[in-house]
Amino acid sequence: MLLEAVYHRPRVNWSYAYDENTIHLRLRAKKGDLTEVYAWVGDKYAWDQTKELIPMTIFTSDSMFDYWECESVPPFRRLKYGFLLQKEEERIWITEREFQAELPSNLNRLFEFPYINRGDVFAPPAWVKDTVFYQIFPERFANGDRSLDPENVQPWGGVPKQDNFFGGDLQGVIDHLGHLTELGITGIYFTPVFAASSNHKYDTEDYMKIDPQFGDTKTLKRLVDACHERGIRVLLDAVFNHSGSGFAPFVDVLENGENSVYKDWFHIRKFPVQSENGIPTYDAFGFVEEMPKLNTEHPDVKRYLLGVAEYWIKEVGIDGWRLDVANEVDHGFWREFRKVVKEANPEAYILGEIWHESSPWLEGDQFDAVMNYPFTDAVLDFFIHGSLDAEGFANAVGKQLSLYPLQASEVAFNLLGSHDTARLLTLAGGDKKKMKLAALLQFTFMGAPCIYYGDEIGLDGGEDPDCRKCMEWDPAKQDRELFAFYRKLIAIRKNHPELRTGTLTFLEAKSHGSKLAYERRLGDESVVVLLNKEDTGQTFRLPLSDACWKDLFTGQTLHTDRGILSVKLPAHGFSILKAADR
Amino acid sequence: MLLEAVYHRPRVNWSYAYDENTIHLRLRAKKGDLTEVYAWVGDKYAWDQTKELIPMTIFTSDSMFDYWECESVPPFRRLKYGFLLQKEEERIWITEREFQAELPSNLNRLFEFPYINRGDVFAPPAWVKDTVFYQIFPERFANGDRSLDPENVQPWGGVPKQDNFFGGDLQGVIDHLGHLTELGITGIYFTPVFAASSNHKYDTEDYMKIDPQFGDTKTLKRLVDACHERGIRVLLDAVFNHSGSGFAPFVDVLENGENSVYKDWFHIRKFPVQSENGIPTYDAFGFVEEMPKLNTEHPDVKRYLLGVAEYWIKEVGIDGWRLDVANEVDHGFWREFRKVVKEANPEAYILGEIWHESSPWLEGDQFDAVMNYPFTDAVLDFFIHGSLDAEGFANAVGKQLSLYPLQASEVAFNLLGSHDTARLLTLAGGDKKKMKLAALLQFTFMGAPCIYYGDEIGLDGGEDPDCRKCMEWDPAKQDRELFAFYRKLIAIRKNHPELRTGTLTFLEAKSHGSKLAYERRLGDESVVVLLNKEDTGQTFRLPLSDACWKDLFTGQTLHTDRGILSVKLPAHGFSILKAADR
Repeated sequence: MLLEAVYHRPRVNWSYAYDENTIHLRLRAKKGDLTEVYAWVGDKYAWDQTKELIPMTIFTSDSMFDYWECESVPPFRRLKYGFLLQKEEERIWITEREFQAELPSNLNRLFEFPYINRGDVFAPPAWVKDTVFYQIFPERFANGDRSLDPENVQPWGGVPKQDNFFGGDLQGVIDHLGHLTELGITGIYFTPVFAASSNHKYDTEDYMKIDPQFGDTKTLKRLVDACHERGIRVLLDAVFNHSGSGFAPFVDVLENGENSVYKDWFHIRKFPVQSENGIPTYDAFGFVEEMPKLNTEHPDVKRYLLGVAEYWIKEVGIDGWRLDVANEVDHGFWREFRKVVKEANPEAYILGEIWHESSPWLEGDQFDAVMNYPFTDAVLDFFIHGSLDAEGFANAVGKQLSLYPLQASEVAFNLLGSHDTARLLTLAGGDKKKMKLAALLQFTFMGAPCIYYGDEIGLDGGEDPDCRKCMEWDPAKQDRELFAFYRKLIAIRKNHPELRTGTLTFLEAKSHGSKLAYERRLGDESVVVLLNKEDTGQTFRLPLSDACWKDLFTGQTLHTDRGILSVKLPAHGFSILKAADR
Repeated sequence: MLLEAVYHRPRVNWSYAYDENTIHLRLRAKKGDLTEVYAWVGDKYAWDQTKELIPMTIFTSDSMFDYWECESVPPFRRLKYGFLLQKEEERIWITEREFQAELPSNLNRLFEFPYINRGDVFAPPAWVKDTVFYQIFPERFANGDRSLDPENVQPWGGVPKQDNFFGGDLQGVIDHLGHLTELGITGIYFTPVFAASSNHKYDTEDYMKIDPQFGDTKTLKRLVDACHERGIRVLLDAVFNHSGSGFAPFVDVLENGENSVYKDWFHIRKFPVQSENGIPTYDAFGFVEEMPKLNTEHPDVKRYLLGVAEYWIKEVGIDGWRLDVANEVDHGFWREFRKVVKEANPEAYILGEIWHESSPWLEGDQFDAVMNYPFTDAVLDFFIHGSLDAEGFANAVGKQLSLYPLQASEVAFNLLGSHDTARLLTLAGGDKKKMKLAALLQFTFMGAPCIYYGDEIGLDGGEDPDCRKCMEWDPAKQDRELFAFYRKLIAIRKNHPELRTGTLTFLEAKSHGSKLAYERRLGDESVVVLLNKEDTGQTFRLPLSDACWKDLFTGQTLHTDRGILSVKLPAHGFSILKAADR
């Protein structure tokens, strides 16, 4: 046994309450090293009456490690525990203090999950698991009210630039909700809609006012109501890390310097407030002068921003907030934010923009989920860039799943592109077949998928600002075949809960491999997904316990032969198979 | 390189802000495996202008791993980073995603410390590092007001039982503060003083009232004032996990069952509220009927208990709270508790009773420290029980130091016994020489030492209730030699800041070894401690860069010979050496 590879620490992903009664325990070991692992658990005040060995199973793996897991429902909501590792005949016990050959006798030296306090249980809103999101960049989605157009508006469909405007607005979204309903969308994430001078609106000037180019509070209310009527939930973008330089308190600081009553609303390093050699004398988003960082620890700033968070939930009924540059804001602020938001709407979804490891925000006291860019990377690296082989892909997503409690993975925000990245179709070099494989994986994976507006009808675009083109509304110019593909994917996901919350097991993901097979299983229900990213046909030979399988895309029925399912997929072929003889 | 042994995760002990400008980074590797480690850091928005390689050093080790560390003061309070590992000529880079042979090119895949937000910085009160605590169990310390004695009071010095009383009170403490001042004590931790029916008072009946056997609020105020005049800070014991069964809200539940307005103040699993086969129908401390667990998530309970926490700080000026059974109370409660307490007294010390790994409580949002029982265990296992050799001891305390941010280790509450354990002298089989070695280690270690009342004058006692004997006040029956020893130890600690906050390096701690040598260093100041726990004399031969050393106990001067300091210690001998030629 490679003991140096064994890891457990009682918190985050390693031991957590999944619900008010259930504790999940996980342990890491060298890949392939152990043959059996058990959790040795009991109530510390009634050890002899409650102690038991619970077998653990490998729930995910990465390139170096297996992650073993079990669940325990302790009778009195508290757990003292160790682990027993086996490699063939070799046995080692683990306590919090050490590895030892003998059964641990001193309970005080075991690990502990002291008590499941209900309020500490990380409980993201259940609806997110079942939601398919669509991201809208309002300035570029649809122009529904020409009277709101800015003076310098460009003709719809022109070349997007850092600073040009095309007149997209909220009425435009209302006008096109039919498109989303037809596709099967049940959630929209809007990039910012509050008053700001840029086209992306990430430089907020007034958090209490809808940007006049987009409409007003009444328009937003009509939009949210119209969405809710269609069963579509709405997330707005909270840009609380920084304001725009036109935000009244910052304008006051610019005008009054050290005498401004708002000077502590920001992180001013030196007066006068200015930029020296491209570096502002105040903290900012990056070094962007127009985006001064807000001091979210200041009581007045906190009161103001928390008021904003509450106001839009209560006033227009939004279903959650996406949090811009969430990692640079203090944890204390986000803890209060969660309280205010969940008080206003207990079912609100709190989604942080964090590109790196996010466990400090995903323990139940701050966010429900983060934008899952590591997932994006893995999918692109395998299907598009080719920098990962099948095994590398399985390891990359396996590692991601190991990092967080299950409930966080279930509501992860799985995107394949956004206003901050080049578009999927463009990254795929315009190759729709590759794009489809990536999307198919996204819609058969754990976590809520999100489509970046226009991807579904073949909109392309490189890095910002090119990825922010105007939406194409001329059906003749839309890729309707692609739309139908997405629509079908969404329908399949909706009809099969195992694709949303089932366990994930890779059946085929080889070194140097270009085909992928995995099973999603929930209780008795099982779906197997096959993907061939090669330019030539490839045959899968999978040992499966079910004999009869139905292809959910083609309706074709397949049978195993002596326990083996053989499927030949064409170049860039795929198959979503449902066990059919249950 | 054994890559499976390498560990870093951006939070808790691995990456944290030590102060408003400084980030500490740590990385674990197999013991002895690496020759050099570097952190590869920079500002993500100005990488090329700020990137640098910072050498890391081993700051502690345990039986399997070395823990490498460095600090970084990033110009804009944010850090993107990876690591470079070297083993002779072999080089490997680590990013958040993987190990790789090449210099990482994609900044997005590095680790990140997004921004040092001041309010998130874990900043325990500075005074704790310089404090020597003394734990008082008030019923057994001194009887200063016979008029308060309970009816069934026993003669002072009788045999302690689970349920007998000797009349100790707060006036008794006031009367004997001279004893503490003489010893050098600068902090007292009192086990509970609020109204309760037991002798230990962990079954609170009224959190707003001093137990009438102990005195009243005025007495406590006089006591705290008298302590403060002597430079002694005061901690009270907050028993918030559970109340006593005589607590009015629980009495109401007992009387009115489901109709009680207080029924949600507790965790009632089933009515009627009673005990069935020794198991209460409500959650309790353990299964103790008299200690019903409080529902600290209930708004009214929270308001009440937070009011209690604030009241005693404001009313009598206490300097902190020790939190009983702190691990079983919800994190949400403790976060609010910290806010209330620090608002009332920004310098208050919040000390949790947790016996196991405590990182979930030690990130700056909840406690300042925990009762360091793992330290107790290591010291007893080496000096008293003999179940650890010198190497095992160094590994055990080395592991403890690796677990938390440095500021947490600096204010750890290092005890060698309490009202919950057998006394040190008794565990040592009455062997004062062993006891002294353990105490010497305690007072030359990182963390605030605490003496359990009476240990300093030779009080003995086995497990509870025997460890709760009456304090001996007859000088003829006190071990004054032991007292003088403790007094000297405390004085030495006070005079040498390196013993409080210096780095710790083991110079001698061998497998099967029974002698221990370690250096505490702070800037240019250095103290070396030698301990021989053998029944025979042993010689230390230590390579030291300083030539001249003074024994702080004996005043004797020692010199190195060709860079080696040779010291022969007698059986159970010790030496605290101060570099004397600086």
